[in-house]
This record gives sequence, C-alpha cells and structure tokens, in this order.
Amino acid sequence: MPSFDPAAMRARELYALMIGAIVPRPIAFVSTLSADGVANCAPFSYFMGVSSQPPILAISVGVRRDGRPKDTAANIRATGEFVVNVVDVALAQACVQASAEVEPEVDEFLLAGLEKQPSELVRPPRIAASPVQMECRLERCLEIGAAPQHLILGEVLRFHVAERVWKDGAIDIAALDPLGRLGGELYAHQREPFAIPRPERAR
Amino acid sequence: MPSFDPAAMRARELYALMIGAIVPRPIAFVSTLSADGVANCAPFSYFMGVSSQPPILAISVGVRRDGRPKDTAANIRATGEFVVNVVDVALAQACVQASAEVEPEVDEFLLAGLEKQPSELVRPPRIAASPVQMECRLERCLEIGAAPQHLILGEVLRFHVAERVWKDGAIDIAALDPLGRLGGELYAHQREPFAIPRPERAR
Repeated sequence: MPSFDPAAMRARELYALMIGAIVPRPIAFVSTLSADGVANCAPFSYFMGVSSQPPILAISVGVRRDGRPKDTAANIRATGEFVVNVVDVALAQACVQASAEVEPEVDEFLLAGLEKQPSELVRPPRIAASPVQMECRLERCLEIGAAPQHLILGEVLRFHVAERVWKDGAIDIAALDPLGRLGGELYAHQREPFAIPRPERAR
Repeated sequence: MPSFDPAAMRARELYALMIGAIVPRPIAFVSTLSADGVANCAPFSYFMGVSSQPPILAISVGVRRDGRPKDTAANIRATGEFVVNVVDVALAQACVQASAEVEPEVDEFLLAGLEKQPSELVRPPRIAASPVQMECRLERCLEIGAAPQHLILGEVLRFHVAERVWKDGAIDIAALDPLGRLGGELYAHQREPFAIPRPERAR
C-alpha cells in the first residue's frame, strides 16, 4: 500500500491527492457583490453542511495564483453576504467557465452567460438557472494554512427550491440531477441512487 | 419557486432540506480511540477538504439524540487523533451499520465486522478494508449552532492508498468506486465520469 508523507510533497501534489480521495464533492456556485457593486460568481467544491439549527454551511476559498484573495472571499469579507447556488448537470459548463481567474472588475455572470435573479434578504443576486439557492450571511471566516485558505461559514437565511425539483415535500434527486465533482477534471452524474436504511437506534 | 424561512422550520426539516440540497457528499468513515482505549468508527458526510499546505480536512459531528457528544467528537477532543477512511461501495453496508448509536464502551469495529489495521503515526487504527486512509491530528475544534455541532479540523499526517486504486500516480476513480451520499437514505455510485477542462487562465 503506497503511503505519502505530506511534508515531502508540494502543494499541487497534495491538492491532487486530496481531490482524488475526498469524492464525490458537491459544488457551491457562490454569488457575491464587491463593495463597489460588481457581481461575481465562482464554484467551490470544498463545501459542506455544518449544522441544522441554525442552518450553517461552509466553503473553503483559496487564493489566486498571484497570491491575492479570490474575489469570492474578498467580497464576502467586505459585505458579509453571499448566495450558494446548487449546480445541476445543465449548469456544468457555465460553472466551470466561471472558475476562470479574471480581474475583480469583471462581472462573471456576463462572462459565463448567466442570468441574475434578485435575492430576498441579501444584496448579491442568485443564479436564476440554479435549481436550489441559499441566501447566506457570513457567520465567521477563519484563515487556515500557509496560503491561507479562507474557511467561510455562512448561515442560510432563505432557501429557494425550483418547482421542477420539489416533489412530495422534498428535493427529488433524479429531477435535481446534481453535478458531482471528482478528482482531476472529472465530474459525475448521480444516477440510479439506491437506499440503505439506517440501522435501528438501540441494540 | 417555493421558498423556506429557516426560522419557521424545525431542526429535522432543516436537516432533510440541507442533505437533499448539498449533494453528492463524500463520506468520512472516522476511526478514533477513547481515552480508555476503546475503538470507535462512525461515518460523517458533513466532510470536506479545507487546504493543501498543510493538508487539512474538516468534519462536522453532531450530538447524540440524548444530547451527549457523539463518541467521535468526544474521542478526538480527548486524544487529539483520528483516521479518516474513505468509503467505497463495497464498504457501504458496514459503514451504515456503524452509524448506529451505541454506548461508548462498545467497539464498533467488532459490531460492524471491520478489521483494524495499525496506523503509523497515530494511535487510532485504520479500517483495513478502506481504499484510502488519512491519519490525522486535531488542528482545532469549533462549536457551531445550538446543539452544538463540533466542527473538527484535522491535519493529515499520512496518506495511505491501496495498490488497487493507485494508477499512473493518481487515484483512479473507477477502481476506487467511491460511495456518494445523497438526501434521505439514498446513495450513489460515481459511474461514467466525464471531463470538463478548466478554462484558460487569462482572457
């Protein structure tokens, strides 16, 4: 069994190993506004739920290749607000397109051909084509590691679910067709889901 | 488009909505030792990578139904060590079995029929059947929300990758066959992965 000592590896190799091992990952397509009001959207697969009451989620945002904070982190820190838009397979190409590094004054909605939809409680717009949108307020931001990464925790203030994916009081996975992020440049559908019942509570 | 105000929802409803929306999720099958030396393993899908240098990952661990901390969180806080074992489809049944709430003195490796494999740098054992194992040291633990959840950050001290999933210097997704966690009691294979090349850096 090959073993790897992180101290002997470069950041790029470690990144490749981690995104190959921690799979499949959900994608947060995050929309923000700069302090100047320029809209930004970018995808992050270092993304998870944290708690239910209140509903809190986390994303980890890296730095640009030139060492500056990514627009997403800078905007969230400046405004305290963001929207997490869920990514289905139909949104895949636009999502990857929006991961390009561009200057802060570029509106990435325009660049990726995405329509904006006004939010109800926060200023950053939602991505209209996204089937599930979560309006969030910054709960806290931690700086982690050498680069550093910004580990951003957000409280969900409002959930929006498209009619087409809402069935019998729940999100329908087949209708949602979420995009899973794998290692390298790979992605996957979530087809033919199967149930495994939870075990009995007491034994 | 249905919208939901979290302030008007119960924790159970919020949990169902979040695990239905944040999909697919990777699964951390976490092995720990209690201060008394009892081995524990339990799966968590609130799990993500955080940074590469150093390699840091995060899991969010809830409380038991009776309000006590889960063994995983209690053990990590007591010992500062844990192993994250990646879950393939072959491990699915044992993984769900190990999610049962049992008393802290019960060895869940025995309960789930899992073989232990000694770690190199930490005391908790690895799960021998897991194709990728990450030995971790507690980096920090945050208490989040009302219950509270324990948001645990760990630094990976050693990666172990099974020969059968290591091909051409990377983890092979088809050989790995990782288990994706969806909403409700649903899971998915990651079959027929497709590539979407990253966009050009400068435009």
